[in-house]
Amino acid sequence: MAGLSESTGQDLADSYESVRQLTLRLTRSLSPEDCMIQSMDDASPVRWHLAHTTWFFETFILKEQPGYQEFNEQFAYLFNSYYNSLGSQFPRPQRGTISRPGLSEILKYRDYVDQQLLTTLESGASESVQSLVRLGLHHEQQHQELILTDIKHALATNPLLPVFESAPFGSDDKGPNDWIEVPAGQYAVGVSDSGGGLQSEFCFDNERPQHTVYLDRFSLSDQLVTCGEYMEFIESGGYEQPEHWLSLGWATVQEKNWSAPLYWKREEGQWKTFTLAGLVPVHPDWPVCHVSYFEADAFARWSGHRLPTEFEWEVACGQHPGISNGQFVDELIAEEQAIHPTLVSGGLLGSVWQWTSSSYQAYPGFRPNEGAIGEYNGKFMCNQYVLRGGSVATSQSHIRSTYRNFFPASTRWQFAGIRVARM
Amino acid sequence: MAGLSESTGQDLADSYESVRQLTLRLTRSLSPEDCMIQSMDDASPVRWHLAHTTWFFETFILKEQPGYQEFNEQFAYLFNSYYNSLGSQFPRPQRGTISRPGLSEILKYRDYVDQQLLTTLESGASESVQSLVRLGLHHEQQHQELILTDIKHALATNPLLPVFESAPFGSDDKGPNDWIEVPAGQYAVGVSDSGGGLQSEFCFDNERPQHTVYLDRFSLSDQLVTCGEYMEFIESGGYEQPEHWLSLGWATVQEKNWSAPLYWKREEGQWKTFTLAGLVPVHPDWPVCHVSYFEADAFARWSGHRLPTEFEWEVACGQHPGISNGQFVDELIAEEQAIHPTLVSGGLLGSVWQWTSSSYQAYPGFRPNEGAIGEYNGKFMCNQYVLRGGSVATSQSHIRSTYRNFFPASTRWQFAGIRVARM
Amino acid sequence: MAGLSESTGQDLADSYESVRQLTLRLTRSLSPEDCMIQSMDDASPVRWHLAHTTWFFETFILKEQPGYQEFNEQFAYLFNSYYNSLGSQFPRPQRGTISRPGLSEILKYRDYVDQQLLTTLESGASESVQSLVRLGLHHEQQHQELILTDIKHALATNPLLPVFESAPFGSDDKGPNDWIEVPAGQYAVGVSDSGGGLQSEFCFDNERPQHTVYLDRFSLSDQLVTCGEYMEFIESGGYEQPEHWLSLGWATVQEKNWSAPLYWKREEGQWKTFTLAGLVPVHPDWPVCHVSYFEADAFARWSGHRLPTEFEWEVACGQHPGISNGQFVDELIAEEQAIHPTLVSGGLLGSVWQWTSSSYQAYPGFRPNEGAIGEYNGKFMCNQYVLRGGSVATSQSHIRSTYRNFFPASTRWQFAGIRVARM
Amino acid sequence: MAGLSESTGQDLADSYESVRQLTLRLTRSLSPEDCMIQSMDDASPVRWHLAHTTWFFETFILKEQPGYQEFNEQFAYLFNSYYNSLGSQFPRPQRGTISRPGLSEILKYRDYVDQQLLTTLESGASESVQSLVRLGLHHEQQHQELILTDIKHALATNPLLPVFESAPFGSDDKGPNDWIEVPAGQYAVGVSDSGGGLQSEFCFDNERPQHTVYLDRFSLSDQLVTCGEYMEFIESGGYEQPEHWLSLGWATVQEKNWSAPLYWKREEGQWKTFTLAGLVPVHPDWPVCHVSYFEADAFARWSGHRLPTEFEWEVACGQHPGISNGQFVDELIAEEQAIHPTLVSGGLLGSVWQWTSSSYQAYPGFRPNEGAIGEYNGKFMCNQYVLRGGSVATSQSHIRSTYRNFFPASTRWQFAGIRVARM
Repeated sequence: MAGLSESTGQDLADSYESVRQLTLRLTRSLSPEDCMIQSMDDASPVRWHLAHTTWFFETFILKEQPGYQEFNEQFAYLFNSYYNSLGSQFPRPQRGTISRPGLSEILKYRDYVDQQLLTTLESGASESVQSLVRLGLHHEQQHQELILTDIKHALATNPLLPVFESAPFGSDDKGPNDWIEVPAGQYAVGVSDSGGGLQSEFCFDNERPQHTVYLDRFSLSDQLVTCGEYMEFIESGGYEQPEHWLSLGWATVQEKNWSAPLYWKREEGQWKTFTLAGLVPVHPDWPVCHVSYFEADAFARWSGHRLPTEFEWEVACGQHPGISNGQFVDELIAEEQAIHPTLVSGGLLGSVWQWTSSSYQAYPGFRPNEGAIGEYNGKFMCNQYVLRGGSVATSQSHIRSTYRNFFPASTRWQFAGIRVARM
Repeated sequence: MAGLSESTGQDLADSYESVRQLTLRLTRSLSPEDCMIQSMDDASPVRWHLAHTTWFFETFILKEQPGYQEFNEQFAYLFNSYYNSLGSQFPRPQRGTISRPGLSEILKYRDYVDQQLLTTLESGASESVQSLVRLGLHHEQQHQELILTDIKHALATNPLLPVFESAPFGSDDKGPNDWIEVPAGQYAVGVSDSGGGLQSEFCFDNERPQHTVYLDRFSLSDQLVTCGEYMEFIESGGYEQPEHWLSLGWATVQEKNWSAPLYWKREEGQWKTFTLAGLVPVHPDWPVCHVSYFEADAFARWSGHRLPTEFEWEVACGQHPGISNGQFVDELIAEEQAIHPTLVSGGLLGSVWQWTSSSYQAYPGFRPNEGAIGEYNGKFMCNQYVLRGGSVATSQSHIRSTYRNFFPASTRWQFAGIRVARM
Repeated sequence: MAGLSESTGQDLADSYESVRQLTLRLTRSLSPEDCMIQSMDDASPVRWHLAHTTWFFETFILKEQPGYQEFNEQFAYLFNSYYNSLGSQFPRPQRGTISRPGLSEILKYRDYVDQQLLTTLESGASESVQSLVRLGLHHEQQHQELILTDIKHALATNPLLPVFESAPFGSDDKGPNDWIEVPAGQYAVGVSDSGGGLQSEFCFDNERPQHTVYLDRFSLSDQLVTCGEYMEFIESGGYEQPEHWLSLGWATVQEKNWSAPLYWKREEGQWKTFTLAGLVPVHPDWPVCHVSYFEADAFARWSGHRLPTEFEWEVACGQHPGISNGQFVDELIAEEQAIHPTLVSGGLLGSVWQWTSSSYQAYPGFRPNEGAIGEYNGKFMCNQYVLRGGSVATSQSHIRSTYRNFFPASTRWQFAGIRVARM
Repeated sequence: MAGLSESTGQDLADSYESVRQLTLRLTRSLSPEDCMIQSMDDASPVRWHLAHTTWFFETFILKEQPGYQEFNEQFAYLFNSYYNSLGSQFPRPQRGTISRPGLSEILKYRDYVDQQLLTTLESGASESVQSLVRLGLHHEQQHQELILTDIKHALATNPLLPVFESAPFGSDDKGPNDWIEVPAGQYAVGVSDSGGGLQSEFCFDNERPQHTVYLDRFSLSDQLVTCGEYMEFIESGGYEQPEHWLSLGWATVQEKNWSAPLYWKREEGQWKTFTLAGLVPVHPDWPVCHVSYFEADAFARWSGHRLPTEFEWEVACGQHPGISNGQFVDELIAEEQAIHPTLVSGGLLGSVWQWTSSSYQAYPGFRPNEGAIGEYNGKFMCNQYVLRGGSVATSQSHIRSTYRNFFPASTRWQFAGIRVARM
């Protein structure tokens, strides 16, 4: 897996064009109306993602350059997500009521910023600018994932169940389960200070510093939990029995009337699931997806296993390099396949994010980036759980074994599944 | 004032085309994105209004006709507003998350139904069908008003304060206040059974039966309360003094932090107001607008007057026929003026709806229409207050002295103002 | 029916002692813990009622007298209910968290105020003071009713279903239904200015001024709706069919999962009801009770009738004087009977309050009392419906045909039932 | 520090009497009314604590014994806190509406269970029964702490600010700050399997198994953060500057309008705090108390330090044994001092709980106890943060260096303060 890491300005400009292009590719089937929907507070309209990722480059790079002319100075307020140091923000739950600038104006905004940014890169940008561009691209890749999960959630609210893009699903690969065995000992986790710099692989500040952890011996499954296995949990009464659940999880099940993963519904005795390629029967050999931390934890307990910690996952991933990986969005797009996970045994990366039992905390000695950009990760380190591995909505160039994704325990709209550990 | 009342099928077809056309005219400046916004639960996206008014004709008229082919059978669920007899309804607060059918598809739906409906009319429709068409046109005129008030609310949530349509404001006409004096006695109110039929003026079921009320003598102002007068109320501390307010009103002022009418904001010591033609200074001689029942009632008490009952209003209106009327949407559109009230003394009809002190109740002997259409008015007779007179967003052909509009006491997004009475 | 109306100071002192004594009698079975409970925002702890009624006399009468020494000056804040003119109030929903002053201290407070008040009366109080004492006694009688309805609600939250006071139920008297016929015409309603003064019957400001209304001819049932009749409504699917309900009523039924009157529950195929004398089978000939306006309205529509207006009720009551009345709290206490309605045909007064279709509005020319006491009634005239007639929790000396009780449409914890009208 | 760990049945009976007695001692100043208050969902009425701790012994020990006669079989539902395996539970937020059984009946319940339990112990209980008694005593000690924090919160809602018990405050001991230095390396944390058994120190299941962690070198302050230091944070604008706060913390500050620790209020330029001994000026040398995790974290960041992890805290505590400890409830009661922290430098145990940066998670290999008792700790391991050290409301026999307390990050009503660490 080759991360998005470029050694020259031209490479970086190429990466820039490629990432920005993929964003447009992902939204090409969407109408201006589709791009307006905000179907819950946690999600954003696609149009907002298109503008906000552009605002990121404009704000952190272009505006710092002498003589830069802002595209529209009111966008500073409208498209700031959560950077308090940059001023107040338009309230997140109301993003869906903003129709102007319209989609075509937002696309002009993207063009404008792209031209300025490429000019900057091609005229020889400083290392710190290059570093910010790289960050901006990874930021955009994160939003590409959100574009897909947010529009999926949005379309699912429509009783007509509109199809995002029709495409064939990938093949499945369910094989016999095996365990990756890891002995007890001290392990280095995270990214070292020499790593992640300009000349090397990119990483976020929350992956640093590299540090030592002591792990007892453990085993990690080399297969994701399948829909078939999860159906057994359902059929055996998993959603009706409090003993499998964390107390907060059980309360959530009651309050929200959960009885299956998000997007599943039972029609005439058969489980179906809404996907970006439409409503289809649940395939028992596909990885289970769109489950919360609570459901992942309850399934693991019910099955006699447990969730791994994020460090167990990371160490096991490092020890399991020989196996090819799962599914990523850039590949699926290239191969014209549906953006939906079908592989369970391809490796630890790809297909679905995997909930770990680890609360999202700072690594020992963690230092956020300087300035406003320091708000990127650190301030969210509370009441969230770490997911590892990437998903069908992640670009392969975006993911790595040290990558820490994080969401609250009740989150279900991400492509998140389960990999169990034992001992 | 000539209401929408046609004696022949051809007249009715002409009215149909004219009303349907005005709807499109009112939305011509709006983008597909604009038509998506639902800025609060009480409001609906413009696209929904365009579809729902069409659904009304399709459901109550076309579907009853042998051989009619539905445009899309899923619309029955999606665009039913509140008719339980016709089946369940898509949840109202989520209307803003439905992007498909898109705006262009909805316009096709309108065309399709229009053609079928006109064919029906032109081939000689029965009296009952004609009666339903007439109802459907008045229904559409009600939604024309909602289109304007809903999009105004929607655009106002955007910090860019987008302009709906730029146009000059009408002239103002503030003159000396005078009182319409009405002696005590028995009066007939409402519409008689012989009225409102096929050969006569249209009316809603809630305007019937005509009945007798006894009124003490009273006087009604021949001028609407102006913004200037309302500013005095504000300046004198009206919003800080509980003694002017109903208990629920005072609780609402506290909870919502009201300190002026909706859309007013103070900038550098000056009151400005957001209008469909953009943000402008508040003109002291314009009628005050976008106030709740609570504010109307508090202002009236503060000024030493009171709100009229709906019957006082109706009787006074009947006694005050000589004076020309205020502003209506069809006229403003024709004259290319801004859709905003500027006249206070033109008569009792037009410019702004006028809150009465009357709770919205059934008239003695009230009988809702038969069938599903009976849900149109009667079931809403609880915790709402009657407004009379029409507004700048009402068509002149839609309004009359017996017309009963109704909204909850805290409602502010309608073009609602104040006319006071005294003993 | 002889209202609480005394011609001499001594009579008034006797009334004072008698009313204050009844309050203590009603609470004699309650422990200090019982008196603490606030089981919903709308209800208050019994201890609060005991203190607040005392605060009323202290505040409006004693504090106005030179040299009066307040019992505890912090009570002014703690026991003010809603009089903004007298300063801010301790938040109503938190009344149940105040344990000090304890019950015994509150009883001392009552004693202290009683002695001072009686001394004042006996030393020859002015007419205005006597008038305020009379108001205070009617105020206390209102709170006696609330003490009973609030403690009933409180005890009902306890799964042990504690009995308030064991006592035999009154006899039932279900006879054939008959209609009180009233011809069309002008009628005087309300209390005339010459009435309600010092030398005459007491009335509240909201019963004035007397004024003329025109009524069409109508009939009012001389029987309350029985539990048996209401069970028919339930069995026929009344709570599942939206067509009987106001829109807000139907929404309330859904939201709160109503399927029977408050305090009813079905055990092994039998309806039982929680009463102040414990859980008992629902008696089909008793009046139905603890229904909301929504349920009263829906039942009336389902049965082919309607609710009367408050003026129809008042006029019919005046024309129906020969029949003895229903049940009142002072009688039930004297006869050691359970405080629960069992009579349906005894007259228009007593047994259960009767929902009318009338929104609670000011009478033409209504003038609230001067000063803080003006907040007593007028400011609540919004989104409430008028009930007439009194109940088993009302003292006979407190009720009269012009009396207007009022509650929001969803209220169920009062002793409120149904009397239907037709034509 | 000698934990509650008894080698013989008689010792255990003595401990039983002593712990149960202390509970009554802590509530002796409270009236039946005081014992009713539930001032927020998180807190319980004192009467509930008195009953629930008794229910614990009855349910897990006495009911298992042949021939035991339950005191009242309805208590099983009423006083079960959260044990789903034992059946459903009376809703927690409504505990404050239950007045019966009254306080005197609950005290009889305690007597009844005490006699039965002591008879059991004295007649030679099995090891497993002894183990459950020990658990029940530690459970009761936890509720002793909650009795104090809940009644403090309850009394604080009363504008009269009632005093729980008047008593002199302990002396303060603010000295120069010093750092406990701990070198990097592997450390054993938690309680070994051989520990915590019948013959040894008690511990909860969540303190096990003992396991190895790797720690980088760090320093831990030997002083608690003082009120004086915290006032500097406030004065410097700490509550107005988002940069010090976690994102959730900042949202909480905004939503709840926090501007100081719970129970602090500013009167005429001086900070005062409500204590169990009444309202007093904030003493700058006392430890700051009643802060949330959010505030502890923000203060630490503002001061250039950080919170320790729970393992850093535990290891440092083990290396710091020579210093005498802080304040505990049993000592304060014995010395007739106010239950309020005044010591900052006495050791790592006592005075105030100390927030750590550690999310409350299972130790590697964690196994909850068998049966219903397994719900005691494990199911709460989500969205809570670990506190260490005990407080003025903790018995000395209840606390130890491995003890893990846990609360959500926004919790403020516990005696929780701050001890900072640095790299």
